[in-house]
Amino acid sequence: MATKFETVRGMRDFLPSEQLFRQQLFDKIRTVLERYGFLPWEAPALEYEKLLKEKTVEEKLIYKFKDRGGRAVVLRPEKTPSLARIIASNPNLPKPLKLYNIGRVWRYDRPQKGRYREFWQVDIDIIGTSNAIADAELIACTNSIFKSLGLKKFTFRISSRKLANQVLIDSGVSQKLLIPALRAIDKLDKIGEDGVGAELRKKGVTKETIATLLELIRVKGSLNKIFKAFLVDDELKKELQEFEKYLKSYGIKNYVWDLSLVRGLDYYTGFVFEVDAGKGIGSIAGGGRYDKLIGIYSGKDIPATGLALGFERIADLLKKEEKLPVQLFIIPIQTLKQTIKITEQLRKAGIKTDIDLQGRSLSKNLKYADKLGIPYAAIIGPKELAKKKIRLRNMKTGKEKLLTIKQLIRTFINK
Amino acid sequence: MATKFETVRGMRDFLPSEQLFRQQLFDKIRTVLERYGFLPWEAPALEYEKLLKEKTVEEKLIYKFKDRGGRAVVLRPEKTPSLARIIASNPNLPKPLKLYNIGRVWRYDRPQKGRYREFWQVDIDIIGTSNAIADAELIACTNSIFKSLGLKKFTFRISSRKLANQVLIDSGVSQKLLIPALRAIDKLDKIGEDGVGAELRKKGVTKETIATLLELIRVKGSLNKIFKAFLVDDELKKELQEFEKYLKSYGIKNYVWDLSLVRGLDYYTGFVFEVDAGKGIGSIAGGGRYDKLIGIYSGKDIPATGLALGFERIADLLKKEEKLPVQLFIIPIQTLKQTIKITEQLRKAGIKTDIDLQGRSLSKNLKYADKLGIPYAAIIGPKELAKKKIRLRNMKTGKEKLLTIKQLIRTFINK
Repeated sequence: MATKFETVRGMRDFLPSEQLFRQQLFDKIRTVLERYGFLPWEAPALEYEKLLKEKTVEEKLIYKFKDRGGRAVVLRPEKTPSLARIIASNPNLPKPLKLYNIGRVWRYDRPQKGRYREFWQVDIDIIGTSNAIADAELIACTNSIFKSLGLKKFTFRISSRKLANQVLIDSGVSQKLLIPALRAIDKLDKIGEDGVGAELRKKGVTKETIATLLELIRVKGSLNKIFKAFLVDDELKKELQEFEKYLKSYGIKNYVWDLSLVRGLDYYTGFVFEVDAGKGIGSIAGGGRYDKLIGIYSGKDIPATGLALGFERIADLLKKEEKLPVQLFIIPIQTLKQTIKITEQLRKAGIKTDIDLQGRSLSKNLKYADKLGIPYAAIIGPKELAKKKIRLRNMKTGKEKLLTIKQLIRTFINK
Repeated sequence: MATKFETVRGMRDFLPSEQLFRQQLFDKIRTVLERYGFLPWEAPALEYEKLLKEKTVEEKLIYKFKDRGGRAVVLRPEKTPSLARIIASNPNLPKPLKLYNIGRVWRYDRPQKGRYREFWQVDIDIIGTSNAIADAELIACTNSIFKSLGLKKFTFRISSRKLANQVLIDSGVSQKLLIPALRAIDKLDKIGEDGVGAELRKKGVTKETIATLLELIRVKGSLNKIFKAFLVDDELKKELQEFEKYLKSYGIKNYVWDLSLVRGLDYYTGFVFEVDAGKGIGSIAGGGRYDKLIGIYSGKDIPATGLALGFERIADLLKKEEKLPVQLFIIPIQTLKQTIKITEQLRKAGIKTDIDLQGRSLSKNLKYADKLGIPYAAIIGPKELAKKKIRLRNMKTGKEKLLTIKQLIRTFINK
């Protein structure tokens, strides 16, 4: 029977044990974001199709339909266009603005391990400043988030769209082939050097240029190594050095300059970032500076930089099931009426308390509490009530002791 | 320009000041739910259309479309069908199960004040017990949630689908007109007695029966008042009395039995509830017992009872804008590099700290911090650095004092 009522292909249910874990991650992420002064925003899941001005997500991946009023709408495939709309529509928001959103996006992608048609993303953006401190602050905050989640091995891959352009021109790619070439290089991880080479040849890049280019994009490491590998303009050099200086001040050491990092999105104008969690996992965050995107909506350029954290991959990496947060299970024995009152008193005191709703026997109740992993049970029978006490049972050891309500509350408050 | 990029009709953006407030409400609601032992679950925003077995939401209100694979899907107009699917697909979950979900639903309704096409609902359900304590526990938990949010005047309207059936039969409504008659009565608040009467006449109910019925559904008050107004079967009488006994044990006093309360949903089988927040506001929560619904999905009846809280009306009722949660704004004066380090140190200590990202002047920075409502600024110039101190400025009084980093952290930790 059950198979008749599945979730929509590529989408998932979350049972309490998993959802508790996801909420815990969301909470930890929020805590760090707030320490860095980021503020939450929210927007509808549905947007008008025309909002997606820059086709950053492939057309075929977008859920789109006409609503009952004939409006062409989409389930948002990313959140940056919604954010750009909000900034453009509220020009009086004080800048710089540091914003975050934790929420769903939808893409009609081929479902596979770690890839879903509905998934959660954490978007972090700093709007209204072109200063490279903002880019460094984004990286520092992301670094702190990943550390607070318990991730150990991850590296920031860093490049700059300006740097990539210079590399291409240096290799002999013509101005009009810059964007197609960037898109080809962006596929390096997926299709390898041969694949990128083939694609570049198809676009009309010469064999010689391709050889130089593939050589250059292999360069990874310190900024000095980049500067040795090819001649960077003085102005850009200064910009990159300044950015690295900030990273150092923030204490960021786990980064590498990587000329092969492009990030396919056409709207990036400056630094681009990706967080790599190692072999077999790949990127768990990505973003960059997009100084021209908001201008498309507002008519006036507003510099901005942002990162999106791929929550699903992070959750998969850290995956575990959470035990119930319930602290205490109350078992009345022919004392339901008074026991309900005690239960309410304990809840008011802040103890996460559950109570038998079935009128089950003591042994069945203990079995149920055990199954749920609740660490303590409180047994309240007529004898206990007569003494104005409850019998607290440690579910692990089976040890019991008689306590007054006050003593019980104190026990849990100190846990 | 801005008007070119609006939100989809009937849907809303939330700027940080409002979203902070909404998050605060979500957090408070979660805290109470967890004290009552409720656990979170989550399901996709999209469901197959065929999941909506019971047409509880009018067809014309449902966002439906075909996805790129030709699947007939809907944006969930309510969450109970998703929950029923989860319970049916996971028969081994220990019962009773106490679950909650805070999330969006979508309905293509006519937008007006307080009514949106995308809105948030808090769903609270107890699954796997037909015991009336579960219904009382739901009401007690909802009562605690509303109190913790600061709502003062609200009343639980309570009835029973079984009671409603007896009232109808007592009035002379025939068996086959029961459901149509219930649906007509459900519109009482909207169309008044005359409207209900007209609708009943259209359905074929006699004038005499309508008069008796309209008389009866006016009865509101204590259970005794209900029992005096018309003859209730002994079995049902006992059930209602038992339920009221539990309510008393939970200390619930703000309730009234109300024979006009029906709740249109066909799937209710027992008690029905609504929370009324008074004139001009109306219902802020509603639900009831649905012992047969899960059986439609699983082939085996599983008793359940639930309540949905209308988050938007509640938020509108409590509406206010939240100040920034940022505690401290750091202003470097030619000390950026060292100041970044101090900022990171304060963040690690748990202080919500923001820093100048623009290299602005002291006065401009103070103006910015003031605009954002940040209560303290820390000024760090070469003089302060030399003394290994920072200058803490109270933004309200303008008073300043020199503190070491340790002293600064202590100051904020104790706030």
